[in-house]
Amino acid sequence: MNADMNSGEPQFERIALIGIGLIGSSLAHVIRRRGLARHIAIATRSRATLDRARELNLGDSYHEAATEAARDADLVILCTPVGVYGTIAQDVAPVLKPGAIVSDVGSVKGSVVKQVQPHMRDGVHLVPAHPVAGTEYSGPDAGFATLFVNRWCIVTPPEGAEPGAVDAVVGFWKSCGSNVEIMTAEHHDLVLAITSHIPHLIAYNIVGTAADLESVTESEVIKFSAGGFRDFTRIAASDPTMWRDVFLHNKDAVLETLGRFSEDLSMLQRAIRWGDGDALFDLFTRTRAIRRSIIDIGQETATPNFGRDGEIVTKVDEASK
Amino acid sequence: MNADMNSGEPQFERIALIGIGLIGSSLAHVIRRRGLARHIAIATRSRATLDRARELNLGDSYHEAATEAARDADLVILCTPVGVYGTIAQDVAPVLKPGAIVSDVGSVKGSVVKQVQPHMRDGVHLVPAHPVAGTEYSGPDAGFATLFVNRWCIVTPPEGAEPGAVDAVVGFWKSCGSNVEIMTAEHHDLVLAITSHIPHLIAYNIVGTAADLESVTESEVIKFSAGGFRDFTRIAASDPTMWRDVFLHNKDAVLETLGRFSEDLSMLQRAIRWGDGDALFDLFTRTRAIRRSIIDIGQETATPNFGRDGEIVTKVDEASK
Repeated sequence: MNADMNSGEPQFERIALIGIGLIGSSLAHVIRRRGLARHIAIATRSRATLDRARELNLGDSYHEAATEAARDADLVILCTPVGVYGTIAQDVAPVLKPGAIVSDVGSVKGSVVKQVQPHMRDGVHLVPAHPVAGTEYSGPDAGFATLFVNRWCIVTPPEGAEPGAVDAVVGFWKSCGSNVEIMTAEHHDLVLAITSHIPHLIAYNIVGTAADLESVTESEVIKFSAGGFRDFTRIAASDPTMWRDVFLHNKDAVLETLGRFSEDLSMLQRAIRWGDGDALFDLFTRTRAIRRSIIDIGQETATPNFGRDGEIVTKVDEASK
Repeated sequence: MNADMNSGEPQFERIALIGIGLIGSSLAHVIRRRGLARHIAIATRSRATLDRARELNLGDSYHEAATEAARDADLVILCTPVGVYGTIAQDVAPVLKPGAIVSDVGSVKGSVVKQVQPHMRDGVHLVPAHPVAGTEYSGPDAGFATLFVNRWCIVTPPEGAEPGAVDAVVGFWKSCGSNVEIMTAEHHDLVLAITSHIPHLIAYNIVGTAADLESVTESEVIKFSAGGFRDFTRIAASDPTMWRDVFLHNKDAVLETLGRFSEDLSMLQRAIRWGDGDALFDLFTRTRAIRRSIIDIGQETATPNFGRDGEIVTKVDEASK
């Protein structure tokens, strides 16, 4: 997939993963499998999570302090919720070796530069990145080596970033199986607001609305969820801390995009109220084409119903044996 | 699964399917497979669809006129978009034989009684039903016999419905593999507004919003859809005519529920604007439990990411051979 894979030489001597949730543990798997570093240093403040990472044999050394993992690392990747980046950057800055690269995997990018850059000394390179990949599961058990394969990773080098450091981060993600796109942090935050942040927000919101209705019981919502609701519950089961931080750290783009969403929804509401079937039909026709395109470029499966019927039927058949 | 399956005697002599899209063709498959009728009569106004149904060998007779299929039928099932029920009922009413049962599969139920009941003579029984099952595909090729297995079917008998006719419809859906729940049409329309209609509406809406942004290109939306957006495109690819009719025919419950959704969304918007992380975190935590319950009762798969990564990785591996 990438020349680095077959060179026999790892890209980095030591990679430090600060935070070992879904993305951190997936990185640990792929770094190990593809030999991208000689040493994987793992840090997390949670003793239980660190113990679990050790049981899973995710790294080569395990640290409660981010500084201990980051010391002597060639590449430090922040894999924690975005809200604690500033604190971590401040902590690890003094121990970073000259030439070290600091990157991350956060779903917002403008805030990363704001939080981390002020702590970086000369000769240390900040190159933020965001692998657009994930599942609804979290924690060190959730990771798997193929999470990034054929997914996009967006790299957002700050102005004046060292080209060699940018190349190293781009090469790293290509070695993980990702396609890489470079853009500004500001544009990233706009793109992700519509493709990820607002979808999560309205998924969380409708699940909350459903739980709070008095006219329909929660057990009815659960029972009859196959009519569409259950599709939303997947992303509404994503990690709460991570998503709280995403919304707090991409406020402007989220509020702007949410305004557009609500405006469009008001138009649909009006069309329903006044019985304007043509307006509804026109929108419902347009939206089909977009799904087709997503399937065509390999970012989605064309299996009806995400293949769920097959799986559930199999389960039923098994149970009736 | 049901005593009828093993009795050797079909439940009905002749079943007429008026409309042969996803649900109609799935019914044709399951009626044939389980021997639920001696004769399946299929009607659709579209010549091309009728020809396709014949090629697929979905029935025993094929008719452009609903009256020809409904004549002598013991059970007539309307499988068209809800908006044309009134016209069909008016057409077929004169040819219905005494004791015939008229049912349907529509996603709204109050409107069915309003549209169909006025045309029904004494001795003909209207028993509306709604199988809460489907995929994003439509047309006679989309159907499959296991669509209804382990899914709920809601039966909404009008006041004073003949118990024997209700039992026959309930038995029919159990023979299709469904669990059956009986409720009023009014309550059905409230339950489905939150579990199905609003989810579809906001999915259609966000796909429309995304397509209309100037700051983010459509190709960027498609490329980076794995961040959450693509989950919404599945249900936003559903049949436009069917869904137009759903919204026009469940106006009151949809507008009421949409009001609640928008109110809750405004609260989230405010929490983001004012940086109220606790409010966000609380909601994001609550919503996880609901998904867990949906998985526990077998209405959803627990496979991470709907099992999509596995599939896409396989596709990539195949391609690289």
